[in-house]
Amino acid sequence: MDVDDAADRQQRWEQRIEVPLFVASLLFLGGYTVVVLAHDAPVLQNLALALTLLMWLIFALDYAVRLKLSGEGLRFVRTHWLDTVVVVLPLLRPVRMVRAYNAVQRRRGEPRLSLHARVIAYASMSAVLLGYSSALAVYQQERSAPGSTIRTFGDSLWWACATLTTVGYGDVTPVTPLGRVIAVVLMGCGLALLGAVTGSFSSWLLQVFAREDEKRSPGN
Amino acid sequence: MDVDDAADRQQRWEQRIEVPLFVASLLFLGGYTVVVLAHDAPVLQNLALALTLLMWLIFALDYAVRLKLSGEGLRFVRTHWLDTVVVVLPLLRPVRMVRAYNAVQRRRGEPRLSLHARVIAYASMSAVLLGYSSALAVYQQERSAPGSTIRTFGDSLWWACATLTTVGYGDVTPVTPLGRVIAVVLMGCGLALLGAVTGSFSSWLLQVFAREDEKRSPGN
Amino acid sequence: MDVDDAADRQQRWEQRIEVPLFVASLLFLGGYTVVVLAHDAPVLQNLALALTLLMWLIFALDYAVRLKLSGEGLRFVRTHWLDTVVVVLPLLRPVRMVRAYNAVQRRRGEPRLSLHARVIAYASMSAVLLGYSSALAVYQQERSAPGSTIRTFGDSLWWACATLTTVGYGDVTPVTPLGRVIAVVLMGCGLALLGAVTGSFSSWLLQVFAREDEKRSPGN
Amino acid sequence: MDVDDAADRQQRWEQRIEVPLFVASLLFLGGYTVVVLAHDAPVLQNLALALTLLMWLIFALDYAVRLKLSGEGLRFVRTHWLDTVVVVLPLLRPVRMVRAYNAVQRRRGEPRLSLHARVIAYASMSAVLLGYSSALAVYQQERSAPGSTIRTFGDSLWWACATLTTVGYGDVTPVTPLGRVIAVVLMGCGLALLGAVTGSFSSWLLQVFAREDEKRSPGN
Repeated sequence: MDVDDAADRQQRWEQRIEVPLFVASLLFLGGYTVVVLAHDAPVLQNLALALTLLMWLIFALDYAVRLKLSGEGLRFVRTHWLDTVVVVLPLLRPVRMVRAYNAVQRRRGEPRLSLHARVIAYASMSAVLLGYSSALAVYQQERSAPGSTIRTFGDSLWWACATLTTVGYGDVTPVTPLGRVIAVVLMGCGLALLGAVTGSFSSWLLQVFAREDEKRSPGN
Repeated sequence: MDVDDAADRQQRWEQRIEVPLFVASLLFLGGYTVVVLAHDAPVLQNLALALTLLMWLIFALDYAVRLKLSGEGLRFVRTHWLDTVVVVLPLLRPVRMVRAYNAVQRRRGEPRLSLHARVIAYASMSAVLLGYSSALAVYQQERSAPGSTIRTFGDSLWWACATLTTVGYGDVTPVTPLGRVIAVVLMGCGLALLGAVTGSFSSWLLQVFAREDEKRSPGN
Repeated sequence: MDVDDAADRQQRWEQRIEVPLFVASLLFLGGYTVVVLAHDAPVLQNLALALTLLMWLIFALDYAVRLKLSGEGLRFVRTHWLDTVVVVLPLLRPVRMVRAYNAVQRRRGEPRLSLHARVIAYASMSAVLLGYSSALAVYQQERSAPGSTIRTFGDSLWWACATLTTVGYGDVTPVTPLGRVIAVVLMGCGLALLGAVTGSFSSWLLQVFAREDEKRSPGN
Repeated sequence: MDVDDAADRQQRWEQRIEVPLFVASLLFLGGYTVVVLAHDAPVLQNLALALTLLMWLIFALDYAVRLKLSGEGLRFVRTHWLDTVVVVLPLLRPVRMVRAYNAVQRRRGEPRLSLHARVIAYASMSAVLLGYSSALAVYQQERSAPGSTIRTFGDSLWWACATLTTVGYGDVTPVTPLGRVIAVVLMGCGLALLGAVTGSFSSWLLQVFAREDEKRSPGN
């Protein structure tokens, strides 16, 4: 009974917090964007930094509440390792954000996509958001590093696209240790997510062609 | 009944317009090729530009007619989003063009390929046409940009092949913002299409080897 | 009856010619290797060239005999398009060669591999042979081209490996038009073949892990 | 009976040696790390070298014992070709190491992961260990080579990550023949392992989304 109760309270909490968390994620990403790009306007940058940190606090609070409600103690940290990682490294939040967006859309009664289309949508949206976050973080690291080839945010976005798709031209690449660590995380996540997009698209295309056959053959 | 009627009229329109649209697509691509490559012959270039724009007009008219026939109004824009994108960015037309070619070939009673072979043919033809269109568009952008490494159309084709296959040598890469945006679109579409080719080829090879086993085992 | 007869005679021819053709393919590849690498010893090079051309003649004769036996005339060119391509571009022969090797091994009563293992073996052997052939052809083209980065055969092999695996460092790349055309063919074939290796390996690994589960669960 | 006996004794040996071998693998990798990185402290380096060679001896002894117990003689070399390769090239040991780790964890009664999760864990851990070993070996080769771009171990790790994910920037690449051979081995193994990660992740994601559907539909 206790376990059921805990699961119940946890679920209600998650449903109530879903939309606020989604908004907080958007504000976090927006705030971080301003922090990185507005390096010429210190006042604006400090305001954005405050907003970003505040949103991070909200993420941490949500994590703490769910940790409490679960009644699992430290086991929660391990069973919900993705949540734990996302609290420590909030730039990985896109992986969760897309889920929240799905939930919101479902509540609004939008027509649902097919299974493959949803996997493609989920994986490609996560990839785009991760790429954007990584481009911001790498730009912040590399902007003023000696010997850096990433001089503008445009360069950084271009680098992130070439990395996510594993094209890897190498015309612009990070040179600082931290920049490279971020790049490796992007490569790892991106490879898996884009593999999912590619695989699902392939299956979906096969399905479309197979269905076309069925539709035509009984008629002839 | 009205809906059936609309669907019926729409289908008849699509069947009647299929061949003209396919020819228009070829003319569009040919005209655009001349526009990009004949930069030393202004008269020829202007004629080709006129042809290209005329074909674009035909695409827009076809879209308008189908929008009208569907009786769906603005919902049509969303439910047929691929058509909408292709009208706005006609260089993405190859995705539709291959479909029309398939339809034409079917009408002529050509023997049909197996499911996997058709997916491979569709995806690789789309990839080739997209690569060619992108090479043209990037060449137009980069040709006279300062610091550009894409100096000839051959360079541009070489770059498009290396990008589509995700090899990405980086010996020639776009440097202008618009060139890079086109490159990112090519990466995205190319990755999905080539993933479909690779995946289908893999399934097909497994099937061929499995069938070989069956053929041999009953005989022994 | 005639069709059966033709198919029968064709099959007998194929069985008889299999081993000689496999030896001829090896000699062709060996001869071509000497032609490309022995550019300091004109006598040896000319001998090897003669051997290479002789083997090509054998391929052409085999093609002609099978064309005759089939009784299909020009239709044979289309239905056996892979054979046609391989006769015109004998450097693509590896694709057929691996098949012949399989047949020879089967005749000798070697234990057969599982389905996935055979697909992996076939695709990776084809990829290795294609990579080797391409490295030779590209080295011949690029060796003395102005501005070339491929100066030794080792460079060319290194380039072929980086291309086949789609890593594409870009430290050595072909610069001549013909070298780049060969590179594009290698990219295309390599991508498909390595996709097949990767896909089959993935399926095989899943199978191995699933079988391990089954073996263990009944015992507990 | 003899065969059963041999299989039985072999299995008991493997169970007894599993944990010592796993520890020996860790010590081998640790020792080799010190050999490569401590090139300024000859005493430490020599001690580490001795440890590394001792561990290699243990691997060879284990191989010899299993060869003896199997009673198969030279056939064992072929039927256990992966073990043979790993004894000759101990840097490829990660492929086996992960397996031992799995076995150890299973014995300790850890909850088991799902099939896809285990394939992902196995393949990605192997890839990480192979990448680390290759980075060490390439760094040792390239460190003092003329014209080398890999000057620090950080460069080497960065290169290994870009190679494993097939991104291949090409900003740092091996230039020595042996360094390039190691790179090619890494490319081959890495491609297959990461293909398995990507493929399994894609299947797993599809499963997660499909299960979500089932959970929701009966309730509505």
